[in-house]
Amino acid sequence: MSEMNGAQSLIRTLVDSGVDVCFSNPGTSEMHFVAALDTVPEMRGVLGLFEGVVTGAADGYARIADKPAATLLHLGPGLGNGLANLHNARRAHTPIVNVIGDHATYHKQYDAPLESDIEAVAGSLQGWVRRSEHTKDVGADAAAAVAASQDAPGQVATLILPADASWGEGGETCAPIPPRIPQVVDATKVKNIAEVLAGGEPVALLVGGGGCREAGLRATSRIAAATGVKAFVETFPARIERGEGLPTIERLGYLAEQVAYQLDGIKHVIVAGTKAPVSFFAYPGKASDLVPEGAQVHVLAEVGQDVTRALNDVADLVAAETEPVLQEASRPALPSGPLTPQNWVEVIGALLPERAIIADEANTSGLLLPAATAGAPRHDVLTLTGGAIGYGMPVATGAAVAAPDRPVINLQSDGSALYTISALWTQARENLDVTTVLLNNRAYAILRLELQRVGADASGPKANELLDLSRPDMDFVKIAEGMGVPATRATTAEELAEQFQRALAEPGPHLIDAIVPTLF
Amino acid sequence: MSEMNGAQSLIRTLVDSGVDVCFSNPGTSEMHFVAALDTVPEMRGVLGLFEGVVTGAADGYARIADKPAATLLHLGPGLGNGLANLHNARRAHTPIVNVIGDHATYHKQYDAPLESDIEAVAGSLQGWVRRSEHTKDVGADAAAAVAASQDAPGQVATLILPADASWGEGGETCAPIPPRIPQVVDATKVKNIAEVLAGGEPVALLVGGGGCREAGLRATSRIAAATGVKAFVETFPARIERGEGLPTIERLGYLAEQVAYQLDGIKHVIVAGTKAPVSFFAYPGKASDLVPEGAQVHVLAEVGQDVTRALNDVADLVAAETEPVLQEASRPALPSGPLTPQNWVEVIGALLPERAIIADEANTSGLLLPAATAGAPRHDVLTLTGGAIGYGMPVATGAAVAAPDRPVINLQSDGSALYTISALWTQARENLDVTTVLLNNRAYAILRLELQRVGADASGPKANELLDLSRPDMDFVKIAEGMGVPATRATTAEELAEQFQRALAEPGPHLIDAIVPTLF
Repeated sequence: MSEMNGAQSLIRTLVDSGVDVCFSNPGTSEMHFVAALDTVPEMRGVLGLFEGVVTGAADGYARIADKPAATLLHLGPGLGNGLANLHNARRAHTPIVNVIGDHATYHKQYDAPLESDIEAVAGSLQGWVRRSEHTKDVGADAAAAVAASQDAPGQVATLILPADASWGEGGETCAPIPPRIPQVVDATKVKNIAEVLAGGEPVALLVGGGGCREAGLRATSRIAAATGVKAFVETFPARIERGEGLPTIERLGYLAEQVAYQLDGIKHVIVAGTKAPVSFFAYPGKASDLVPEGAQVHVLAEVGQDVTRALNDVADLVAAETEPVLQEASRPALPSGPLTPQNWVEVIGALLPERAIIADEANTSGLLLPAATAGAPRHDVLTLTGGAIGYGMPVATGAAVAAPDRPVINLQSDGSALYTISALWTQARENLDVTTVLLNNRAYAILRLELQRVGADASGPKANELLDLSRPDMDFVKIAEGMGVPATRATTAEELAEQFQRALAEPGPHLIDAIVPTLF
Repeated sequence: MSEMNGAQSLIRTLVDSGVDVCFSNPGTSEMHFVAALDTVPEMRGVLGLFEGVVTGAADGYARIADKPAATLLHLGPGLGNGLANLHNARRAHTPIVNVIGDHATYHKQYDAPLESDIEAVAGSLQGWVRRSEHTKDVGADAAAAVAASQDAPGQVATLILPADASWGEGGETCAPIPPRIPQVVDATKVKNIAEVLAGGEPVALLVGGGGCREAGLRATSRIAAATGVKAFVETFPARIERGEGLPTIERLGYLAEQVAYQLDGIKHVIVAGTKAPVSFFAYPGKASDLVPEGAQVHVLAEVGQDVTRALNDVADLVAAETEPVLQEASRPALPSGPLTPQNWVEVIGALLPERAIIADEANTSGLLLPAATAGAPRHDVLTLTGGAIGYGMPVATGAAVAAPDRPVINLQSDGSALYTISALWTQARENLDVTTVLLNNRAYAILRLELQRVGADASGPKANELLDLSRPDMDFVKIAEGMGVPATRATTAEELAEQFQRALAEPGPHLIDAIVPTLF
């Protein structure tokens, strides 16, 4: 490529830096980027029909690939549509190279209809933001964006690309820039933590971030086995490795009431790769800070430090001779009868295939899932890190792009599904091996619970109406088929089991509309 | 209501100020608002399954009702999801009272997962933003928000409502606050414009905003008839009144090439209620400013001034004896044969019912629509003011809530439909009389055109792949039925005519999946 425009230098630099998938929802200002895709064969463009699909897929991709994908979005409104899943990615510390096309630099003064404050919206993500004003700088800015996205612990790096910087000639590629690697926790802090563990008072160890992968979990398990500490994984890990042959570490609960139970009597909370526990929402008369009163918080590893190494260093001090406690193979029996919140998770636990990736947005329907899958074959679980619903289908899509050789299971509540439902179309188009189990309880069930928990009067018909997703019932079989994904309906455990097995056996995406009543 | 919480004072104040519809997609932090709906019977809560539906519906509602609706959104991610249609509303100068729930004030310090910079995102809309920190102020802030939303020319007024301000006791209602009314254009300016009109040089008069309603159009037509000025309506009016018995004023084109043709030879451009024309996007080597070289721009009425009165004042000076030229009744004959970009608009023109509201997001498929409907019975057309696609279905939904006695026709391109497709479910739930004609050309056809227009090389297979919506084809009949809306497919003009008539005759929503090839 002797002469390049800005878009070509951007894509070439991304590929050279290891970014070779771009989830895209382009518009006119991105047309040169789109055209440039054909000049860089290594870059794969994946079309999403809505920007929330694009950004969620980039999140799911990076959680599995351990490297960023790029997005391609159209000005401020495109970024707005993608913002909720970028918020989740921000909370997951997922590296994403978030490319946003803008009007040509000289066009912005005219306040054309799509003119919008991209910096303000992108800035709300508290990541890295740069506007690439000049064609010759686009390559260097792209390499900087890839590095910034991977700076420990990972973040959304937004590169704003004016149309004329993209179409201008004189683009220059840039060599990869190494990202900032996680800082090592110093030995003094490790020793101090070891002393807390040896102090004889009740201790909880809360592990997050990279500590939820095998090496961190093994170290955590050794520490717990040797010292009797209560070990927990953060409530919503970006990615946790689970199943047979791995330590099973309990996740901290979502509800403050659960956490109070889990941390009852604890005098010291050690945090590693995550923050001290706080309530997801505020509730009248209840504490937001979930550290038990009088307990001390000790930080072993800040978010962004090398949490796995820190856990191993502690384990070497306090558990040198101790092996981790590894989960034995164990599956529930296949249940029968009409679907319930209990038996559907038993079906999943009984049939979960080897090396599965679970994109979990089952919300209330999935409360009983962890126990049912603890002894299943080894698998990864991706969770809703930022609370912005509509994450499951896109994240499953991106995970399947990252790992075409692994089965992806999207456990998806109905209310959340509608935010980004067109992810199904991308799954069909790319023939991705995603099996969606749509937990259809025909309600915003979590809000029924929350309405009680916040102390609001739940008796009114208008309030209940706003939490009800029946009238009309949604037919997810038709919706999925309309987007090109084969779909079936299950109302019994036997049907779910049969359909789940069939979906896993066939290549490409499938959806099972599982009619499961609410827990509440 | 002797003792109120903040949420109750908010809803009561909204109702007292004339805002009695709230399009809602609530979460936990909004549960007290939801519960309070049952204490104020005059407020109607309408559930959307995605925030872009909520904000687009609020836009469509206000364009027809001539008063704001409220929204109810869930923190920063909810606002993000609603941002694209708020952008369109901003460009339409639509009054919206945009209520966003937030964490309790004391909870924000904990940086819980959904913590987000709501002010930064809301600020990007360049409207009115206020955080209501104290329960006793919520009512006053609500009244201020209603007034601000209606301050001429209308804007998005965002009220951020912390959960504890909402649930706290001691809420106080507030009496309505009068909004700032449009400023009257002074007589000197009117005289100056009259002189330009009388100067003998070629003049174009470009009318926007409230000038696109009957009174403004009549004045515009009188001016044009008396002076020979070329009169145009802005490219994307928020609401234009059209049809039999009204003046037909040509809309300024979307493409710069069209505008160059329309303004060829013009020496003076008078703008009233809109801005001087600029290109929607920048194109290499083409001008962004569409005012012909050497032509002078004269502002009769700024956006937000009383454009209708200004036009009438000018007409009284230059066209005192002249009547407006009114459109005679005229409909195309019902066509036959396979659907084409020409014959589908003839079907609409032939069958458009009395007092219809058209929510037009037909994009490229609709280029031939205006001519086919000019002589149809009087109707309103709502257009995509801000260029953020995914506007049509929500706006149709809101318009139908505002005008339950009028038929709403949503002319909807396929690519844009997928952004906010769950609006269909709200249409079904509320039994709204919306007939969606889904123009299914299985492509982002406008981008095929734009790829050529920006000079990008269109020959590559990867580029074309990103503009292609087939593989798989979407089946909008199934998607609509899955969301509770009866649907049919039309491939011929006869089928479209028969199905369109049937849909209009039956109450409630309908969708017609009209397979129309692209123009390009």
